Amino acid sequence: MKALVMGCGNIGSVAAEDLAVSMSSLEVVVADKDEAKAKSVAERIGRSNVSWVQVNAMNHAELVDSLEGFDVILGFLPGDLGFRLTEACIDAGKDLVDVSYMEENPLTLNDEAAKADVTVVPDCGLAPGISNFLVGHAVSKLDKVGCIGIMVGGLPEKPVPPLGYTITWSPESLIDEYTRKARIVRKGKVVEVEALTGVEEVVFPGVGKLEAFYMDGLRTLLETMKNVGDMWEKTLRYQGHVEKIGLLRDLGFFDERQVDVDGAKLAPRKLTARLFEQRLRKPGIRDVVALRVEVSGFREGKRTSYAYHLLDLYDDKRNTTAMARTTGSCASVVAQLIARKVVKVKGVVPPEVLGKDERIYREFRRELEKRNIAINEKISG
Amino acid sequence: MKALVMGCGNIGSVAAEDLAVSMSSLEVVVADKDEAKAKSVAERIGRSNVSWVQVNAMNHAELVDSLEGFDVILGFLPGDLGFRLTEACIDAGKDLVDVSYMEENPLTLNDEAAKADVTVVPDCGLAPGISNFLVGHAVSKLDKVGCIGIMVGGLPEKPVPPLGYTITWSPESLIDEYTRKARIVRKGKVVEVEALTGVEEVVFPGVGKLEAFYMDGLRTLLETMKNVGDMWEKTLRYQGHVEKIGLLRDLGFFDERQVDVDGAKLAPRKLTARLFEQRLRKPGIRDVVALRVEVSGFREGKRTSYAYHLLDLYDDKRNTTAMARTTGSCASVVAQLIARKVVKVKGVVPPEVLGKDERIYREFRRELEKRNIAINEKISG
Repeated sequence: MKALVMGCGNIGSVAAEDLAVSMSSLEVVVADKDEAKAKSVAERIGRSNVSWVQVNAMNHAELVDSLEGFDVILGFLPGDLGFRLTEACIDAGKDLVDVSYMEENPLTLNDEAAKADVTVVPDCGLAPGISNFLVGHAVSKLDKVGCIGIMVGGLPEKPVPPLGYTITWSPESLIDEYTRKARIVRKGKVVEVEALTGVEEVVFPGVGKLEAFYMDGLRTLLETMKNVGDMWEKTLRYQGHVEKIGLLRDLGFFDERQVDVDGAKLAPRKLTARLFEQRLRKPGIRDVVALRVEVSGFREGKRTSYAYHLLDLYDDKRNTTAMARTTGSCASVVAQLIARKVVKVKGVVPPEVLGKDERIYREFRRELEKRNIAINEKISG
Repeated sequence: MKALVMGCGNIGSVAAEDLAVSMSSLEVVVADKDEAKAKSVAERIGRSNVSWVQVNAMNHAELVDSLEGFDVILGFLPGDLGFRLTEACIDAGKDLVDVSYMEENPLTLNDEAAKADVTVVPDCGLAPGISNFLVGHAVSKLDKVGCIGIMVGGLPEKPVPPLGYTITWSPESLIDEYTRKARIVRKGKVVEVEALTGVEEVVFPGVGKLEAFYMDGLRTLLETMKNVGDMWEKTLRYQGHVEKIGLLRDLGFFDERQVDVDGAKLAPRKLTARLFEQRLRKPGIRDVVALRVEVSGFREGKRTSYAYHLLDLYDDKRNTTAMARTTGSCASVVAQLIARKVVKVKGVVPPEVLGKDERIYREFRRELEKRNIAINEKISG
């Protein structure tokens, strides 16, 4: 069997190595638009079942051709290319596990994917990803769902001045997260809430005091989870972060409207993104990933709640961030479940749907545990 | 007698009105480079002894000519014009009371001023200004001076989000204050300390909890106060201000080094100044002025300390800020003391030198009290 890993960033390379190590029968090809990058990732993994190729994801026909001969595709492309890759996989008749966090709604491709007899698992990282698996599993155990709450954060191991935070992704996306309204469910209805609101203090085991605030991360759950009282996702940061970010927002540093400075016109947000890039990116810093999912409702007439905690640390041996580890592992495991025909359902199947299937969920959890990604589960009620 | 008030901003117009009201024998002419502004200030004061004129302070010869026929000049020009005005007054043989906060050292003109038989009182506002009078007075009472500490703040009546502060002057100057090293005296030596350091909590009577930090405000005191153990000036702000400003500094928003944004080059400080202008200037907001001067040392072999508190409020009747009131009153009172020949000393005479003279000090305090600018004085030891 052959797997194609599209995108050779941190996460893609972790997933590629995981695939190659866990399924020696699998031929893994890593692809990137940057030939040197693809080559260096393949060489770094250094396994006989790993090779590399240069692929241009911008051209649809070329992309469809590139997928020829593969059994499963793993997508780690930037958000603006995720939907294109999904369309190409459907056209090429290839299964896809995607972690692009695409802006478009992948569920709109469900009929086409089903018709092409293809399995597409979108949003298959940490959150969305592992979080959706856990939500799906808990919901499958309940007769009536009251509240679904997700809290997730990728953080430096210790607060790093000045914001207690470092960036591993684009500063523009970070600022988007701090300004974009969040869609949550309140009393059964989808509503929008302002960014940086819903702030609460959280003591996270193994990390300490954090604060959580709404972010727009529910995505497919807004469509797949019906008849739910309340549902929200919150981002986790070290204490004091929201106040500082709120200050920058209130002073206008996130504004998109251009300001006239010495005759030049400039959106403050763009300068802020540049300064964030300079000041908040600290390569090599050890990170932690904290995820909490709580689902409460009724089971056989009784109040029941499921609480899951995941805490993952930086991998010193492999110099891999917890964020890349958890995200890449989720995608790799699901791709293997497809390759092994544990996952057989066709169409666009977000992870929460897979989590509802007891056998898939057990396999998924078992595989994560093998990788030392342990999820603490507590059922009460 | 005739007085010329150079500069028709908030402070200049307060001083002009004060002069006209307190000395009806005085002919007051208000001057500005902007004819309409000068005219409107004269009309607003609406007194028969007030008229206006347009003056260009950029051309030395023209400026010297403009001073012809006046007995005393009051300078409220921007910092970069203060030294020019001082030179012009000396050349024209006119006494000057200045509040321009000029960058140059006015004391370098002392010999020229003395030779021209002219009195120049520089830095004659609130702080520097009233603060220097108080320092001078206390020092004149002591045989040995241990410590001189000045704390001063012009604040909104209540903390105003997001910084607890509003600007009444240029945002560029404000940022300068937050980044420029401060010169203080430590163990008898002038040393430079970093901006935003020396932070301490202060409970100011009538205002509440504030915080104070070093600023570069000692100016002439660094030369006139010799044999002093410690001497410093601190700015007062509402609590939390330093942390917020420190965040902006740490993120690079005060940097003068240009950053490349979409091909355009821009110093972050310039954009920040524009945003401060948009967000921190709130015309019509009621302000307070808080000033604390403490001078301690030995008098007749005994530990003695002088503590002065000044708290001034927004003047609702006249719609005048406490900052304009205190600054403009100090300048007006000193100009009148010159006109009345109470102040007769020639040369460049900073206010602390005047404060050492018991008669001048008593007159000065009495005049401030008439204007409801009360200074609480406490002598202990």
